[in-house]
Amino acid sequence: MTTPRPGWDPALDTGLLSPVRAGSAAEAATTDAAFLQAMLDAEAALARAQVRLGTVPAAAAEAVTAAARAELFDLREVAVRAREAANPVVALVRMLAEAVARKDPEAAHYVHQGSTSQDVLDTALMLVAARTSDLILADLDRTATALAALARRHRDTLTAARTLGQHAVPTTFGLKAAGWLQAVLDAEERLRRVREDSLPVQLGGAAGTMAGYLEYARLYAPGSAEQGTAPGRSAAYAQQLPSAFAAELGLADPLVPWHTVRTPLADLAAALSLTAAGLGTLAADVQLLSRTETAEVTEPAAEGRGSSSAMPHKRNPALAALIRSAAYQVPGLVGTLAQVAVTDDERPAGAWHAEWETLRALLRLTGGAAATAAELAEGLTVHPERMRANLDLTGGLVVSERLAAVLSPELGRAAAKQLVAAASARAAGTGRHLADVLAAAPELAGRHSAHSLRELCDPARYTGAAAALVDRVLARFRATRRCG
Amino acid sequence: MTTPRPGWDPALDTGLLSPVRAGSAAEAATTDAAFLQAMLDAEAALARAQVRLGTVPAAAAEAVTAAARAELFDLREVAVRAREAANPVVALVRMLAEAVARKDPEAAHYVHQGSTSQDVLDTALMLVAARTSDLILADLDRTATALAALARRHRDTLTAARTLGQHAVPTTFGLKAAGWLQAVLDAEERLRRVREDSLPVQLGGAAGTMAGYLEYARLYAPGSAEQGTAPGRSAAYAQQLPSAFAAELGLADPLVPWHTVRTPLADLAAALSLTAAGLGTLAADVQLLSRTETAEVTEPAAEGRGSSSAMPHKRNPALAALIRSAAYQVPGLVGTLAQVAVTDDERPAGAWHAEWETLRALLRLTGGAAATAAELAEGLTVHPERMRANLDLTGGLVVSERLAAVLSPELGRAAAKQLVAAASARAAGTGRHLADVLAAAPELAGRHSAHSLRELCDPARYTGAAAALVDRVLARFRATRRCG
Amino acid sequence: MTTPRPGWDPALDTGLLSPVRAGSAAEAATTDAAFLQAMLDAEAALARAQVRLGTVPAAAAEAVTAAARAELFDLREVAVRAREAANPVVALVRMLAEAVARKDPEAAHYVHQGSTSQDVLDTALMLVAARTSDLILADLDRTATALAALARRHRDTLTAARTLGQHAVPTTFGLKAAGWLQAVLDAEERLRRVREDSLPVQLGGAAGTMAGYLEYARLYAPGSAEQGTAPGRSAAYAQQLPSAFAAELGLADPLVPWHTVRTPLADLAAALSLTAAGLGTLAADVQLLSRTETAEVTEPAAEGRGSSSAMPHKRNPALAALIRSAAYQVPGLVGTLAQVAVTDDERPAGAWHAEWETLRALLRLTGGAAATAAELAEGLTVHPERMRANLDLTGGLVVSERLAAVLSPELGRAAAKQLVAAASARAAGTGRHLADVLAAAPELAGRHSAHSLRELCDPARYTGAAAALVDRVLARFRATRRCG
Amino acid sequence: MTTPRPGWDPALDTGLLSPVRAGSAAEAATTDAAFLQAMLDAEAALARAQVRLGTVPAAAAEAVTAAARAELFDLREVAVRAREAANPVVALVRMLAEAVARKDPEAAHYVHQGSTSQDVLDTALMLVAARTSDLILADLDRTATALAALARRHRDTLTAARTLGQHAVPTTFGLKAAGWLQAVLDAEERLRRVREDSLPVQLGGAAGTMAGYLEYARLYAPGSAEQGTAPGRSAAYAQQLPSAFAAELGLADPLVPWHTVRTPLADLAAALSLTAAGLGTLAADVQLLSRTETAEVTEPAAEGRGSSSAMPHKRNPALAALIRSAAYQVPGLVGTLAQVAVTDDERPAGAWHAEWETLRALLRLTGGAAATAAELAEGLTVHPERMRANLDLTGGLVVSERLAAVLSPELGRAAAKQLVAAASARAAGTGRHLADVLAAAPELAGRHSAHSLRELCDPARYTGAAAALVDRVLARFRATRRCG
Repeated sequence: MTTPRPGWDPALDTGLLSPVRAGSAAEAATTDAAFLQAMLDAEAALARAQVRLGTVPAAAAEAVTAAARAELFDLREVAVRAREAANPVVALVRMLAEAVARKDPEAAHYVHQGSTSQDVLDTALMLVAARTSDLILADLDRTATALAALARRHRDTLTAARTLGQHAVPTTFGLKAAGWLQAVLDAEERLRRVREDSLPVQLGGAAGTMAGYLEYARLYAPGSAEQGTAPGRSAAYAQQLPSAFAAELGLADPLVPWHTVRTPLADLAAALSLTAAGLGTLAADVQLLSRTETAEVTEPAAEGRGSSSAMPHKRNPALAALIRSAAYQVPGLVGTLAQVAVTDDERPAGAWHAEWETLRALLRLTGGAAATAAELAEGLTVHPERMRANLDLTGGLVVSERLAAVLSPELGRAAAKQLVAAASARAAGTGRHLADVLAAAPELAGRHSAHSLRELCDPARYTGAAAALVDRVLARFRATRRCG
Repeated sequence: MTTPRPGWDPALDTGLLSPVRAGSAAEAATTDAAFLQAMLDAEAALARAQVRLGTVPAAAAEAVTAAARAELFDLREVAVRAREAANPVVALVRMLAEAVARKDPEAAHYVHQGSTSQDVLDTALMLVAARTSDLILADLDRTATALAALARRHRDTLTAARTLGQHAVPTTFGLKAAGWLQAVLDAEERLRRVREDSLPVQLGGAAGTMAGYLEYARLYAPGSAEQGTAPGRSAAYAQQLPSAFAAELGLADPLVPWHTVRTPLADLAAALSLTAAGLGTLAADVQLLSRTETAEVTEPAAEGRGSSSAMPHKRNPALAALIRSAAYQVPGLVGTLAQVAVTDDERPAGAWHAEWETLRALLRLTGGAAATAAELAEGLTVHPERMRANLDLTGGLVVSERLAAVLSPELGRAAAKQLVAAASARAAGTGRHLADVLAAAPELAGRHSAHSLRELCDPARYTGAAAALVDRVLARFRATRRCG
Repeated sequence: MTTPRPGWDPALDTGLLSPVRAGSAAEAATTDAAFLQAMLDAEAALARAQVRLGTVPAAAAEAVTAAARAELFDLREVAVRAREAANPVVALVRMLAEAVARKDPEAAHYVHQGSTSQDVLDTALMLVAARTSDLILADLDRTATALAALARRHRDTLTAARTLGQHAVPTTFGLKAAGWLQAVLDAEERLRRVREDSLPVQLGGAAGTMAGYLEYARLYAPGSAEQGTAPGRSAAYAQQLPSAFAAELGLADPLVPWHTVRTPLADLAAALSLTAAGLGTLAADVQLLSRTETAEVTEPAAEGRGSSSAMPHKRNPALAALIRSAAYQVPGLVGTLAQVAVTDDERPAGAWHAEWETLRALLRLTGGAAATAAELAEGLTVHPERMRANLDLTGGLVVSERLAAVLSPELGRAAAKQLVAAASARAAGTGRHLADVLAAAPELAGRHSAHSLRELCDPARYTGAAAALVDRVLARFRATRRCG
Repeated sequence: MTTPRPGWDPALDTGLLSPVRAGSAAEAATTDAAFLQAMLDAEAALARAQVRLGTVPAAAAEAVTAAARAELFDLREVAVRAREAANPVVALVRMLAEAVARKDPEAAHYVHQGSTSQDVLDTALMLVAARTSDLILADLDRTATALAALARRHRDTLTAARTLGQHAVPTTFGLKAAGWLQAVLDAEERLRRVREDSLPVQLGGAAGTMAGYLEYARLYAPGSAEQGTAPGRSAAYAQQLPSAFAAELGLADPLVPWHTVRTPLADLAAALSLTAAGLGTLAADVQLLSRTETAEVTEPAAEGRGSSSAMPHKRNPALAALIRSAAYQVPGLVGTLAQVAVTDDERPAGAWHAEWETLRALLRLTGGAAATAAELAEGLTVHPERMRANLDLTGGLVVSERLAAVLSPELGRAAAKQLVAAASARAAGTGRHLADVLAAAPELAGRHSAHSLRELCDPARYTGAAAALVDRVLARFRATRRCG
């Protein structure tokens, strides 16, 4: 037997089956190790928050913080022992307490004080979501900037608008790019709002009453908290502890514990879903526009990019395929999160547990798609001459709408449309230009010269408000960059 | 053969397979007839908006408005002819023009002027969404009001908090109700935001450039619009027309056409998804709490309600089952809308078409669930004595967390937890009270009397900040009612 | 106020939002009225089955059968009263008993004897599924026959195979059609298997023990059934009653009641899902192949078909868009059915209720897609000359794989591939033919003439086993027609 | 800085977020490394298959086989380079050829001969699916065996059947277990059928025509294959190569390549979906039955199992929660696979790529659920005395159906049901036994003694055909074990 390569570990997850995120920052931010670190960050921050309120000694929190480093733990053991309690926190707390005890036995008593698994795990989910959202927002910014440049540069580049796959009327490539930009700005706006307002810490104790936290407060800082119906100091403590915890972690401070009210996950899922859809649209368009027969755009070239194992000539739009692979997977995950948002009791058994991996997949796929879209948008090559050639393929048909309008005052709307439809069919059948067919139509006898009809058929004169619409989206882009 | 009943029509959709919405206002607001009316409303509003800008004569718009009444059209014919163009607008426009022409032939020329199917259909979707959202918001208000009353009344009613189905620690029924209320308030906040800001008219013309609208403006109100790269008046017209259209319909005015940027549907789906999940949670809890062995709540009684075709004694929680039937169906629909939000070209072929029925189902199910939840919340009977009896089932185990905390200072955290765990097992096995088992524990020899331990075991003294948390959610409720 | 049109009913469901099934046979087979009739059929068949076993008088079953006609019932009332018990059967049974009693008061006592709502509703679901599956199978047969004809006719029609949207290697249009056919045959095979083997009656009584049925047997046919642990006659009766019931309805006889084991729905959903995917693939390909720049196929023409409300020249692939609209919606419904297949207790509360409308939508969409696909396949126009023209667009690149293979023996695989890749890039950049570029390559100096290279580049000589593969699928088609 | 633990690698995937499969055999069978090995297995098998047909030298295939060991490759590099071509095969082929070349430069020319990425990746998917299915089938066998033992042992153990969460009629725990068993047997039957018949190799070459394979055959084994319309030897070769390939790998031999006909994935997804639903149902029931107030079953105990980080007394049904976490996630993945089964062109760009990770997740979750379910079923503790106590909670109400039946002959069906309903309400309100309330009913004056009514109320005498139904499922179990 040959020896395995150094570093070979059969348990590696390297994105082999998900190249859209392989090696990406979003992947690194969402590994098992990253979640382990986030859980440890939550434990350490909880201890420090309790220091602020006088219910944990500062030295203990320092010891916990020092021990709370993922690389010191046996990740596999945490994972497998997670089966005992159906979540990894129970075992982790034990291991963390042991690690702390090795340095400072007294401090170990304060690990996870008053807390519950869900407080730690939910807070870790939010931490990872916040960190990954920052990465995604950065890639959306890159993507938006590149798309804005495309929209500006091609504000007046003529191209065919297509509906149901058929040439419809002229438009500009700038307006196409502005459409992609608008989708990215919508996604960015929602994801930023979620990132800033809707990712709270979790702090409810065993079943959302915060009783454990208050009990330790009563024991260690008498007077700070009384339980039961007379709120007073206990109400104050119940407000201060999550605030301090949130401040330690840079997350939002929730109104109340949200063990069974999963709005933060729903808001996040909605923003990520919109992000994936917007990027998926960009990718779908790039795929259509780069088809061999159309060839209006080309993906950025790079060593090996888009090559095939079989066909030496191929230059596949590989980035677009990667992005779409993510966009196809996201909706199912969003549906799952929506389903498990139906909770019960004081902690849903199974529904909660189904969120973790689903959220991770959602963050990774969207993060990978955003990084890939930035690369695609920044390097997209545009072929205006192909656009013009394609636009001319149909001999004026692409402005049939205009001709029907122009002829309406004299013929009436219905008759004009019918005449142009018949002429269009004749033009398509014979290969003649629509203007010429119409010029020969008895209904128009002598009223319109072929020349004036040809002029009406100029696609450059029938782009409507395309330029103004591009400008509006660009204005939005600039406004959001200034205050973003 | 006997004659069918009067009014028998085999094509009726009466909610037979979806009793959660059968006969509801949301059902009525989302029928084929309602969508047909909304499309006609869009056509009429478009004509009136063009009157405002001087490109349609006022009399023509009046004629269109007069004819735009769903009950005058053959709904079946519109539907079947929708197959020709893959959407119902093309045939409808023809039929509307004919109807107008019968009264005012001249006016018929102005029907659908410059427009496209998607402008009309998308605007109709938004109209129906707005109308149905208003109904849902009203039912969420009823539900929230009822839940707030429950939370207030039972602010201090003791009950068992359960995690993974097992008694965990004491809580109050008020806090359970506050949790449901919090979920409803979150949903209401998001749906209201969508209703007010995110349901725009659609107005892009054939492929999003507005060229058709501008062309008619050029023809009928020369000077109002020039196409192409020199914006000027055409840019102004392109801004004014959608504004006027939006004003006619009470919908939002979009920055640009959104034929391929489906954010409005995504925002709406997210809000409806959260709504269904919140109501589903209420229902799931009612189901669990009304199980024969638990019997802590009972659904409102009504003639025939909850009866069985087989078992005369049955009083089934039928409303909760209805709500959950909706909550189960919504996530799949949300996933579908997320999938078809990936568009392409200037109009997605198939993806767009898949939105219509999916959105209708989403509105109906959520609307039916909201109406049913209002009925459930307003009539829910609570049995505090059963809650107390259940809480006492386990002889003090429900406060084991507290005892472990109390014993921590003297024994250390880990040892205290271990001792209480062992005592809990013994108590569960023997049926003795946890306090008594602990009082006899050699580790505590003489340090705690059975009496003081019993006092610590009083669930009423271990509800943490439950009351304060209820108060916070109620404060939010009151704040939103004031400004809502 | 003008009077509404005769027959106007605002509750009509005419497929306005789902033109893929508007007016289709599958739509008619799945109306509320059709489900009502199926429930009544189940009630009548149950009575007749009990007649066979001697526990209901024949005259009573005749009276029930005579009354069990949907058009005699107030559909709206059944639907709205379904809210009372969370299912329509409880109210329907009462109404049916009243209707029977009006003719034969004695017979009314035997309505729904020993039964439960779920037995009737599940059996009705299976009946409707069976009836609609027959319609779908007929349309799949039409589709398969048309695709087989296309595959046969175009067995050797050259066209470009495309991967990631780029020309890959030559193939035949026959092989494309054979691929669509293969997908349809797979779907047909699975749906037929489900239709024949997997759509059983439901007969479990109140909670799956059949106790009610046995009790009435004990009362009315003493000796036929004893309950409890001594099976004997009761075991025999418990086997005979579902068999007789199944025989009355032409459905399968289940091993045991399946109130909580939803395999029949899962099998059906899997077959319908595969059907929709196969038809969706046909539609997706038609959309791509009929794009303006490609224009290799055209949808069947028909009055009004594919027209646009704006653009007179448009001939949209409307049928393909309709089919895809169904294919987009089916997966979400399949996911929902998979979710609610997780049941609990002896009848799932909410999960069961969510199946009904979901299954209806699934049947309708797939049924509509099948009818539309038959129309599309039967009328598809193929343009071999456009296929050839497109194939020639890239000057030999489409056989680059072959050239790399041919040069491998002399240059080695890697070097050959590299050389052809470089030559391909040069050819694409300069517009020269790949054969000419290669002929000039120093690496091949004098070894291959431009002529022999051109011959190697003939796409007609590089279609691999396309013809043989077509023949294999056609052989399968013929084999299934013979025994189908 | 402290040093990380030995073996620390931040890229590990250890199931931390998915404890249902952490450390399971299904997890190990579906790692990136396992997929890498499967791709290498496919490459090696392809070479050996070509040896069988004389188009690759035996020594070359041996060299490829020797080099095709995952642990010799840099997994990370393969994954990251997968971004270039949007799939990992292109880079892997290059790396494999280099590895082969280091030992035998001549052999390297035969790596991946005539092949394409999709052939290798799809075959690898099927290999991993086959290997993991075997693991799942083994765990389903364990689960079925344990459930059969439960059904047998508790064939006559009385318990309450519940519908909508309320006591309905008596049943036996054996019938509950038989229901779970029936679901497992259905799943097993379908998964075994898929495993045996429906997991084929993929072998189509660049675009499904097999042209590359035939070209090399022509070059290296002249006479074995001619391309184009005259099939003959090329048709034979096109049949023999996939057969040989399938034989090498123990997979099925497909009729034709299935690049765009994704039936194998659909069949697999359907079987896994049914599996997850069946196991999810078992878990859902265990959760309900082990609720504190019900306490009829207990999960198997194990060190640390079901413990809580907060509450020392907790014995959570952790295994059931794990299984449900999987059952919640599977439907979304199934929906995704259904969506991407709509393909286009000769290889779907994005849809294909979305299958890989989705299928992996599906296999892992189902595999983890099966392993967990086996553990749960084998160790489940049943508490017949609690079942009996719960059954007696409602003082005879649980047999109200029977009393209504018994009184029918004398009172008529409707009147009997009404009387029992009223008596049930009175019994529930007063706590009296239903038999006693009825004995006092004036309508029955003197006709039934309290004693005879009490006897009718004996739940043990109203279990219908429960025992016989258990026997039928057990007979099926035994039959499948014999021939399995």
